[in-house]
Amino acid sequence: MERHFEANLQTVRERLLAMGSVAETMIRLSVQALVERNESLVQTVLAHEEEMDLLCIEIDDRCFTLLALQQPMASDLRFLVASIKINSDLERIADQAVSIALRARSLITQPEVKPLIDIPRMADLAQGMVQKSLDAFVRRDPELARRVIESDDEVDSLRDQVFRELLVFMMADTDTIPRALALILVSRNLERIADHATNIAEDVIYIVRGVDVRERGDKELRKGLRVMTPRPG
Amino acid sequence: MERHFEANLQTVRERLLAMGSVAETMIRLSVQALVERNESLVQTVLAHEEEMDLLCIEIDDRCFTLLALQQPMASDLRFLVASIKINSDLERIADQAVSIALRARSLITQPEVKPLIDIPRMADLAQGMVQKSLDAFVRRDPELARRVIESDDEVDSLRDQVFRELLVFMMADTDTIPRALALILVSRNLERIADHATNIAEDVIYIVRGVDVRERGDKELRKGLRVMTPRPG
Repeated sequence: MERHFEANLQTVRERLLAMGSVAETMIRLSVQALVERNESLVQTVLAHEEEMDLLCIEIDDRCFTLLALQQPMASDLRFLVASIKINSDLERIADQAVSIALRARSLITQPEVKPLIDIPRMADLAQGMVQKSLDAFVRRDPELARRVIESDDEVDSLRDQVFRELLVFMMADTDTIPRALALILVSRNLERIADHATNIAEDVIYIVRGVDVRERGDKELRKGLRVMTPRPG
Repeated sequence: MERHFEANLQTVRERLLAMGSVAETMIRLSVQALVERNESLVQTVLAHEEEMDLLCIEIDDRCFTLLALQQPMASDLRFLVASIKINSDLERIADQAVSIALRARSLITQPEVKPLIDIPRMADLAQGMVQKSLDAFVRRDPELARRVIESDDEVDSLRDQVFRELLVFMMADTDTIPRALALILVSRNLERIADHATNIAEDVIYIVRGVDVRERGDKELRKGLRVMTPRPG
């Protein structure tokens, strides 16, 4: 029974990683579709959406069945509740990638405002944050999780740079306004992806911190049973 | 013990309602600050932020202690996991209201682009969705929850209207571009608040649906143990 439960937790972990890997692909391809002006990549991103929905439902089912039927102890409980939250963050990351792909679909039928440099850089950063937050989850590595949270500032500063630069184009030539606005919204989608990766990293710290304080008895345990630290900012 | 546990669940419910009520106030005042160009309302919104963070931590603590120490049955389990998710949605709603207040602080030092009509309307709708989603939570009313989910389309259509209208101002007078952009981003903050209210409504349906299917035995129970339906769109 014990071993069976462990195997079930391992399956949850693997399914979350599979979901993370699809989410990363969706981020990468949605921005690539925009940069390379490639409609078939838009379709590839959209085709992944159903896969993500199914994975999300499967993971929720698994976590809830384990929570309900096995009455897990504190550290497994934290792992399962964090998994439910991470699952929901990954689903929303996929939603943002879909939104980028749809904006790309419209943008690539119109003339380019400018060559894109900071948006692909933001996408690389955001994708890296998703990957590292899940690495931190698997390795139970709070240091790596902390580094993910720190990178969020870098994403925000790129977002501001994209905004300032596109503002100049809009002021100089009003014809660019609708396209420049769409690019600004793409940068906001990427910002939200980075926010979700930050949430995942916070959940990892919570899982690991909980394990650390667990041995210090009941009062400390209760303190450790906090699902997440308040979000910075 | 049983009665004590029930009292604890009731406290979680009440604290979530208290948090929802602060969140609603923050939404209302942040948009009022913008419309009435009132800096002191900006400060009031910001002053609520710490209260929300403390409530969020308290609720997480309560839910996790109950999950860990009481080993609740399926329906209480669903209630507690949904409460953790609703808690996190309410915290993020407050984040969005803070973001609106900060944009208001900057906008009210500059000339008005236009009298605001659709943004206050969006704010009313979004605030109403938050309120109704929590009413549905307290009354375990899936019908009301469904109506909340339906109103999301109305918010999205107002968002598109705000966008189109401000675009016209930007094209006609490039001086308005930075201010019009800030207003577009306010409409996106309100859209995200409505999305969070939709998430809460989905969690309510999950809690209630779970209760309904519970009596049909184990296989149905497992199906009912799904934390949320896939988000529409």
